[in-house]
Amino acid sequence: MRAVGLVAEYNPFHNGHSYHLQTAKQVSGAEAVVVVMSGNFTQRGEPALFDKWQRANQALAGGADLVVELPIFYAVQPGTHFAAGALRLLAALGVDEVVFGAEHPEWDFARLVTAEDDFQRQGFKDFRATYATQFNQALAEKTGVSLVDPNDILAFSYYKAARDLKLPLKLRPIQRRGADYHDQTISGEIASASAIRQAALAGEDVATVVPPQTAADLANLRVVPGWAALYPLLRNHLIQAPVGYLAQSYLMSEGLEYRMKAAAERNLSFDGFLRAVKTKRYTYARLLRVCLYTLLELDQEAVERAMANPYLHVLAFNDRGRDYLHTVKKDLAYPLLTKVTADQKEGLVNADYRAGKLYQTFTPVEQDVKHAPVIKLSRKNH
Amino acid sequence: MRAVGLVAEYNPFHNGHSYHLQTAKQVSGAEAVVVVMSGNFTQRGEPALFDKWQRANQALAGGADLVVELPIFYAVQPGTHFAAGALRLLAALGVDEVVFGAEHPEWDFARLVTAEDDFQRQGFKDFRATYATQFNQALAEKTGVSLVDPNDILAFSYYKAARDLKLPLKLRPIQRRGADYHDQTISGEIASASAIRQAALAGEDVATVVPPQTAADLANLRVVPGWAALYPLLRNHLIQAPVGYLAQSYLMSEGLEYRMKAAAERNLSFDGFLRAVKTKRYTYARLLRVCLYTLLELDQEAVERAMANPYLHVLAFNDRGRDYLHTVKKDLAYPLLTKVTADQKEGLVNADYRAGKLYQTFTPVEQDVKHAPVIKLSRKNH
Repeated sequence: MRAVGLVAEYNPFHNGHSYHLQTAKQVSGAEAVVVVMSGNFTQRGEPALFDKWQRANQALAGGADLVVELPIFYAVQPGTHFAAGALRLLAALGVDEVVFGAEHPEWDFARLVTAEDDFQRQGFKDFRATYATQFNQALAEKTGVSLVDPNDILAFSYYKAARDLKLPLKLRPIQRRGADYHDQTISGEIASASAIRQAALAGEDVATVVPPQTAADLANLRVVPGWAALYPLLRNHLIQAPVGYLAQSYLMSEGLEYRMKAAAERNLSFDGFLRAVKTKRYTYARLLRVCLYTLLELDQEAVERAMANPYLHVLAFNDRGRDYLHTVKKDLAYPLLTKVTADQKEGLVNADYRAGKLYQTFTPVEQDVKHAPVIKLSRKNH
Repeated sequence: MRAVGLVAEYNPFHNGHSYHLQTAKQVSGAEAVVVVMSGNFTQRGEPALFDKWQRANQALAGGADLVVELPIFYAVQPGTHFAAGALRLLAALGVDEVVFGAEHPEWDFARLVTAEDDFQRQGFKDFRATYATQFNQALAEKTGVSLVDPNDILAFSYYKAARDLKLPLKLRPIQRRGADYHDQTISGEIASASAIRQAALAGEDVATVVPPQTAADLANLRVVPGWAALYPLLRNHLIQAPVGYLAQSYLMSEGLEYRMKAAAERNLSFDGFLRAVKTKRYTYARLLRVCLYTLLELDQEAVERAMANPYLHVLAFNDRGRDYLHTVKKDLAYPLLTKVTADQKEGLVNADYRAGKLYQTFTPVEQDVKHAPVIKLSRKNH
């Protein structure tokens, strides 16, 4: 049984995701669709609008056959780590091909990766903004390609990760359809996830741009997850903890802990705090990720150890997903978890478990220990 | 100018406190009433119903002439430390006499303190429940006195502290009037502070048992401070911090950090958490104090250092209080703070500053830095 792999956040699952999913199946000719999806926190470091189980359920309703969690130590990361982590899991799950949207799927991304090697050799060591700018400038001069659109950049990261990690995956960029990532309007059948979140929170009708399951979940949404509600927790910890302890937080660097402590003391709102902390040096996404790891009190050593020990935590599957799992089960390079045990919460899945406890700010549902996957089997199997 | 000293929490200020204040003035014949009052958190480890400035204002309206803060490292402590800290400050402020309510003011407390010395010599080292029980039993057999009422116990602590610290203070227990500490009914003119809190929160009229200033403050109360609102902060920190870090919290002992971490993981409500943690070994007050110091991330060393370096933080005064301060100012053994500076928040007043930041869960008011005292001068001085 051949499977096509997708990498997603589904925050929430919308018509653009349906289109991506159907197209991936079509172009790959695969029988099963395997999705690696971020958990309760997104790549930008924000709590997802729905917990991972609800979003996995939306994905299943939308055509996915198997949904596996992208652990927080891969998901809440810069794009390079996010892409590498997701592909590692998809390769471990034995998918043949990974299909992803890009603004310019016609580009020769493999060649861009090689071009970057040349720049690296010329002395650039780091993927910072300044570097990205210089790289893009040189790239544009040499090839006419301007790597600035978010999905193009992510596509680049997939190619780079697959090559560096020598993953046996066919990569296939496809044309993104519909709304631009930054587009905040709702029109036609496809809108961006952020436009949908904003519209839904404003009480506007989004039924034209999301499938029925997402529409139903949105209608039942009681608490809107967001940093505003996490800020009191972050604020107190930033104020009370010694700077030496804060400095150990993963991604905290260059004295940012002093800046954050001072900003926390002075600001009662998260918006004010974030404005006080922001400099050109850090993107908002980077700052949100630092905030999250600070709240999780996870240090560099803990996150790097976790990154070296991934697992395949199954969030949802249907008949095809189950059958696919059966065929690949004995060849898996990483542990397969269908239900997290009390022991595992202290070990392998500790970071996700802790993120789930933090996510309980928004839901009483236990996110990991003994939580069974979402399973939808067709009638003939009962 | 002679001053009488009072030790109080005023949570909130009520008619019983007015009575205490007037009686203290009467029996002492003093011209000025100096109050040492706990700050934003009470001896039991709970956030006060009103912040320290509002309560100092209530006290001023109720007849106090000078209100000084009992720093958190003295206030949020077992009765022995609370009493000792308060008397140290009152002695430093040069008051002649301290007047306090007791259930049995006629007892010879000095003799009870001596009796305790004998028990100590017999090998009892600690003021734990088991010890208290044994001590009380022996005391009752020997003297017929049963030291079980809360204000009698506190009176005993005042006598013990004054003797041990050799403080030049006259101690005068007076009869408590009206409601029992544990009495939860509102009748007559005097009710207990806890009965008043409960009644006020239930929307019942408490105008018969509190002075107008307290009644007005209660009518304006928008957010009701309590552990329920602090629990999300505590819960996340208990879950995320390494047990080794939690173990360093002041008052955390005997593996309580493991018990608290496990209870936090399983309980979404503070009541459930507290029930899960409670054993016969610890009183609720002790557990609340541990919770508070854990949230403040203050360790033993930090608290003991602070206890060795007290100060006199002026919260409120009127003409008489100002005049009294002028007469004693040059002889003060501890620094007098009328306005906390940005530097002091990192030094001398750090623990109170941090407690004030935590208390901002309930109020946007900055509690320390640059906060001026409440001042009420009579017209002729303007």
